Amino acid sequence: MEIIGRIYNDYHEKFGVPRQSGLNPALLSRIVMEPNYRVREAFRGIEAYSHLWLIWEFSEVPKDAPFSPTVRPPRLGGNTRLGVFATRSPFRPNRLGLSCVELIKVEESPEGPVLVVAGADLMNGTPINDIKPYLPYADSYPEARVNEALARPRLQVVIPPSLTKRMPAEKLPALSELLALDPRPAYQEDPARVYGLNFGGFDVKFRVADGILTLQGIEEARPEG
Amino acid sequence: MEIIGRIYNDYHEKFGVPRQSGLNPALLSRIVMEPNYRVREAFRGIEAYSHLWLIWEFSEVPKDAPFSPTVRPPRLGGNTRLGVFATRSPFRPNRLGLSCVELIKVEESPEGPVLVVAGADLMNGTPINDIKPYLPYADSYPEARVNEALARPRLQVVIPPSLTKRMPAEKLPALSELLALDPRPAYQEDPARVYGLNFGGFDVKFRVADGILTLQGIEEARPEG
Repeated sequence: MEIIGRIYNDYHEKFGVPRQSGLNPALLSRIVMEPNYRVREAFRGIEAYSHLWLIWEFSEVPKDAPFSPTVRPPRLGGNTRLGVFATRSPFRPNRLGLSCVELIKVEESPEGPVLVVAGADLMNGTPINDIKPYLPYADSYPEARVNEALARPRLQVVIPPSLTKRMPAEKLPALSELLALDPRPAYQEDPARVYGLNFGGFDVKFRVADGILTLQGIEEARPEG
Repeated sequence: MEIIGRIYNDYHEKFGVPRQSGLNPALLSRIVMEPNYRVREAFRGIEAYSHLWLIWEFSEVPKDAPFSPTVRPPRLGGNTRLGVFATRSPFRPNRLGLSCVELIKVEESPEGPVLVVAGADLMNGTPINDIKPYLPYADSYPEARVNEALARPRLQVVIPPSLTKRMPAEKLPALSELLALDPRPAYQEDPARVYGLNFGGFDVKFRVADGILTLQGIEEARPEG
């Protein structure tokens, strides 16, 4: 498998990345191609499509992780086992991820054509193996049946006015949506606990009580690496 | 990339395989896992889902085919070039295919758990790299915009009554649908030309004139190989 490009966005750590694509449509990402694929021609006609598929690599999962036939989805509290092929868990043979994103535009850049997309659920820097147009007549099944037990209620997000100026305004909608999706692992319910995550170079702190997530702080993170 | 299973169905040759999944819902396939993945546990909970994604390998495309940034979609007459990432062409880096199928049932067999699925667009024997549940809240965009120039009118299919008994009755609906999708390459319009394809071990002959496809013959094929 060859890496054809990488995605770049504000999801600077795994914690907080939504569990599926499309859940955070305010989050923009840039897909930069590897040198071999920096060819504008390879994207000719792509603007006719509003949505794209990304097939990508769960690069955070060790390559040599042994195969486990079952996983414990965090959404089920972490105790119930489901078959790996009955989930979208990253811990699977071939570590392939599948995400649908909205194509915003194709930009020319010194690094060749760059796809600007919305709604990705890939961490910053994730390698991509394929990009395909979305075809609703083959890909869209609005009535498809799912395991309802995996649904999770949204949180109400409170951002104290004193904090809204600690981060560029254009980053706030995507941060707010990420938090509303409830990034906490496996139904942790500890109102005193302060969680932290790095979003777009900012350390974000929050607490959750009674279905309300309250932002505690935003600080510019120290440069990575 | 590891092969986790293979699909088996009546598409015994590439000619006639629909160009996307879901177009021939009458066509049933069986997915047989490789020995390492013949584990019922790996599918626990999959029955909660009506549809599945298959990520697979265009194994008919040579592995070492050089990268070409553009392809000439047959649906555009074979003369217009589109970027490979603006199409679902098999001639792409990593040769990955993506198909949504309906899950009919999981069967126990001497070869382990077998998934019976409907609507696949994979040729008989195609290797599969991943199986995931379909999640409409993340995967379904019925209003997504596409390149309308790639649509193709359906054909009316005429099967003379004398031929309907030459093939098991349960194979006829999927054959008929395959033919209605117009398997001819690149807008060939030669009413005298007789086309042939192998469907489920039968040699099927047909002609097309004025948007009507007429079956000319059905013969049991000589055993392959």
